[in-house]
Amino acid sequence: MHRDRFYTLSASCPDQVGIIARVTGFIAEHKGWILESSFHADDLDGRYFMRIEVKAKSLPFHLAEFRERFRPVAESLQMDWRISDSAVKKRVVILVSKQEHCLYDLLARWQSKELDIEIPCVISNHDSFKGFVEWHGIPFHHVPVNPENKLAAYAEVQRLFDEVRGDTMVLARYMQILSPELCRDYPGQIINIHHSFLPSFVGAKPYHQAYARGVKLIGATCHYVTKELDQGPIIEQDVIRIDHSDSPEDMVRYGKDIEKTVLARGLRYHLEDRVLTHGNKTVVFR
Amino acid sequence: MHRDRFYTLSASCPDQVGIIARVTGFIAEHKGWILESSFHADDLDGRYFMRIEVKAKSLPFHLAEFRERFRPVAESLQMDWRISDSAVKKRVVILVSKQEHCLYDLLARWQSKELDIEIPCVISNHDSFKGFVEWHGIPFHHVPVNPENKLAAYAEVQRLFDEVRGDTMVLARYMQILSPELCRDYPGQIINIHHSFLPSFVGAKPYHQAYARGVKLIGATCHYVTKELDQGPIIEQDVIRIDHSDSPEDMVRYGKDIEKTVLARGLRYHLEDRVLTHGNKTVVFR
Amino acid sequence: MHRDRFYTLSASCPDQVGIIARVTGFIAEHKGWILESSFHADDLDGRYFMRIEVKAKSLPFHLAEFRERFRPVAESLQMDWRISDSAVKKRVVILVSKQEHCLYDLLARWQSKELDIEIPCVISNHDSFKGFVEWHGIPFHHVPVNPENKLAAYAEVQRLFDEVRGDTMVLARYMQILSPELCRDYPGQIINIHHSFLPSFVGAKPYHQAYARGVKLIGATCHYVTKELDQGPIIEQDVIRIDHSDSPEDMVRYGKDIEKTVLARGLRYHLEDRVLTHGNKTVVFR
Amino acid sequence: MHRDRFYTLSASCPDQVGIIARVTGFIAEHKGWILESSFHADDLDGRYFMRIEVKAKSLPFHLAEFRERFRPVAESLQMDWRISDSAVKKRVVILVSKQEHCLYDLLARWQSKELDIEIPCVISNHDSFKGFVEWHGIPFHHVPVNPENKLAAYAEVQRLFDEVRGDTMVLARYMQILSPELCRDYPGQIINIHHSFLPSFVGAKPYHQAYARGVKLIGATCHYVTKELDQGPIIEQDVIRIDHSDSPEDMVRYGKDIEKTVLARGLRYHLEDRVLTHGNKTVVFR
Repeated sequence: MHRDRFYTLSASCPDQVGIIARVTGFIAEHKGWILESSFHADDLDGRYFMRIEVKAKSLPFHLAEFRERFRPVAESLQMDWRISDSAVKKRVVILVSKQEHCLYDLLARWQSKELDIEIPCVISNHDSFKGFVEWHGIPFHHVPVNPENKLAAYAEVQRLFDEVRGDTMVLARYMQILSPELCRDYPGQIINIHHSFLPSFVGAKPYHQAYARGVKLIGATCHYVTKELDQGPIIEQDVIRIDHSDSPEDMVRYGKDIEKTVLARGLRYHLEDRVLTHGNKTVVFR
Repeated sequence: MHRDRFYTLSASCPDQVGIIARVTGFIAEHKGWILESSFHADDLDGRYFMRIEVKAKSLPFHLAEFRERFRPVAESLQMDWRISDSAVKKRVVILVSKQEHCLYDLLARWQSKELDIEIPCVISNHDSFKGFVEWHGIPFHHVPVNPENKLAAYAEVQRLFDEVRGDTMVLARYMQILSPELCRDYPGQIINIHHSFLPSFVGAKPYHQAYARGVKLIGATCHYVTKELDQGPIIEQDVIRIDHSDSPEDMVRYGKDIEKTVLARGLRYHLEDRVLTHGNKTVVFR
Repeated sequence: MHRDRFYTLSASCPDQVGIIARVTGFIAEHKGWILESSFHADDLDGRYFMRIEVKAKSLPFHLAEFRERFRPVAESLQMDWRISDSAVKKRVVILVSKQEHCLYDLLARWQSKELDIEIPCVISNHDSFKGFVEWHGIPFHHVPVNPENKLAAYAEVQRLFDEVRGDTMVLARYMQILSPELCRDYPGQIINIHHSFLPSFVGAKPYHQAYARGVKLIGATCHYVTKELDQGPIIEQDVIRIDHSDSPEDMVRYGKDIEKTVLARGLRYHLEDRVLTHGNKTVVFR
Repeated sequence: MHRDRFYTLSASCPDQVGIIARVTGFIAEHKGWILESSFHADDLDGRYFMRIEVKAKSLPFHLAEFRERFRPVAESLQMDWRISDSAVKKRVVILVSKQEHCLYDLLARWQSKELDIEIPCVISNHDSFKGFVEWHGIPFHHVPVNPENKLAAYAEVQRLFDEVRGDTMVLARYMQILSPELCRDYPGQIINIHHSFLPSFVGAKPYHQAYARGVKLIGATCHYVTKELDQGPIIEQDVIRIDHSDSPEDMVRYGKDIEKTVLARGLRYHLEDRVLTHGNKTVVFR
């Protein structure tokens, strides 16, 4: 956490000699003060990843000019890249069903500015949390989903997300499978928390599957949503110990504690541009 | 978690031959169905601990008679004992200051009945959470504390706790040191969450102490409050990994995640009569 | 750990009223001093599990008579049961291939009597560790396994195990799949360590599978061997954190640290009669 | 782990604009291929830390010339710096007393080349492990230590360490307190494993202290040895869960598992030049 405004450059490119020198040379040339920097070479694929935070006021130009001047460097390195500004809050839309733990957890972090984001709205297929969300001054949209109206429902979710210019959609134990269209149109923008240590126990009722198999730890996985259910790039995971005395209901209860923590950690990494995807995997610069 | 009503016997006594047989023999004689049972012998001190859940409807009598009939058994074994009824919700008073994480976490668990308790009121030395608490339909009492009014303030806290017939007082990051009188009058009833892995870093600003020492893990400790600050019997602890890149502010943020989890776990153990104290230590039958 | 000799009763039976009373009543009647006791009711299956340690010298009879006298109690409760004697060391045969970590770890624990067992021999399909094992005074048998001689090789393993009157066979990263006959003839006696967090990544090269999927934790699983590969009852599991910078080779290295620890823990539970199997699951009284 | 030979530059210097650009610019200028790089700015102290691995054969010169040519860059940045060569094995002298777990663990890692080091000798104040060590082809020196001969004994340890040109001295549960002279003469070269989660439970019998305090986790700490006992810079720590049923002897046994793991991790970080000390703290580039 840095108090001063900063820009974050996240990028990947084919690996070659001199990448760091080129990029940090450009920044140094403009007297940019680097607050934090991370680099990673994927040896097997020959791809290079980086994330650099530069103090905004150390640079002689603003974001638009930073981007413009950096473009030739990026192009010469064949980079996929983006630069974000810590002063521009990310706009996070939360989707929730009837379970409270992730929603309370995210709103607590938002309320205290631990998560320094905008939450332009919460969308739910139930109206259970309408009062709670609205009490926080956040608009709440009840978009029921049933077998008949799925297409229309997801079109409405998409409309609401676009209308509020959302950056990220968080499925905070949203117990519905998004449409392939939504998954396709917002790659790397939709984050889910799955209540198992993937790839174990994909699909429904993972805690019951875990109980049946007799595992000694249960887990949770925060991942990007793709059209392959529970198969998207994994951002963060964690586990918690259980034993023979725990029923599936106990596991559900234990699981909540890791689900909310893993979701919050994964979301933070994403919002701070610490996550670079690479095929079906992620580089996470913690 | 058992759906059926049950009674919980928690007891300790000097160790000797035949304790379990005596106690479970008494229960079996009345056709009591044991749902869960735990026993522990402290070899060094020669003391025996137990916790037994009996299905209420399997017994031919109600709680009062259970207690009355069990008394001679307990007395012959020189027991410290109690029997609680799962149908009687514990009454938990929460004390909070300006940090939100434990309060949100506890109210989320209460709202979903994961913690099946009554919260007759929340008391705070600030009024930050008045609206939030009252939105949940829980009375909120603002009892300011300052160097001049401490005695009166704690008398007021005590009066409120007594007035609502509280069973347990939870210091959910309540940043005040309770009066020795309160600590003395409610032994084993006041639970605190300390933001360090005790006995490391007692007192103020433990995360800054941890930063200065360069530790690689930080922790949180849930303990009973006694008049010796940060010295009471430990109920639960946990830690989280940090590294050189984490500032004291980052540690505060990481720490919140274990503080709320450790507090919730410790409180649950306490409320389910899983914690038996023994000098300055606890037996926790998980 | 108790210094005095003790007997361990492990049993399971259909659940009913009065089981603990019957069993502990029997023990108390003979002035048996209970050192440790654990009970578990499996609500879903209506089965009851227990493990009780009784100080040997507190009883007026020896093991054989203990068993004989307890038999009627056990039969009336339809128990599966066994009583073991802490003074009789279990005989553990270790099978190993070319990886050293589990072998060194087990021999270190044996050498210091942390694992108070007999190791009548070590069997390997390679001769790499012949000198190391023999230096410890333990016979080493090189039984090569190849596609042609499998039947004969496993017959030889079985002959050696029987010859030394082995109680338990430990596959300490033995990179061969045992014959169905071996698995069938020694149910609950063969323990394997699998280098993944089962049920994730069954079969070969689990670390490479984990790398390909981009998981953030890798694990190890100690389980009983059954004829279904990697499907036997799980005794113990653990995980360790990795990240994008770890190659499959790094994971192999990290994995060794949990493999040996998880195997040693699982083996200890087994040897101390803390593991009761129940269909494809285990009750582990730690 | 990189199969190709590489040089590792570890350095720290006062923070300023352009450090990374200067250093990586120098490397790029000579077509140096960076395999791995890590940077850290300590905001509070204004100090900058880095570690860079460069593929040896990508550079047009050898180590000596690399150092010579880099010197002006380093001096202009007022760096503390060193460059090591992955082809030159570190020489690690192990000191041990009567506990076997860390010794077996280190020799297993050395035997399999997981730790790719030279162990020129093992020194002990007992002769328990003479045979075991010598069987591995490693010289063993028995240097008894008693209240009368301490000065002479440590002089002998120092002589042996110097004679074999040791780089690092590892106290693998060496139950003696080194002389202030040794601590002073080899700063950052002597690594100890302390059997507690420092700063809790300094001094003798930490597991007994932990038992008396009733903590719910016990730990181990790998640190550089300084003349202040148990106060040196911490390299690595970890903990393991215990409960009320664990005696101090059980804790000793559990503790061994984390002691050896934490020591091995800390030693690896040190040997790979991943640890930079900074006052009484460390930067560890994992």
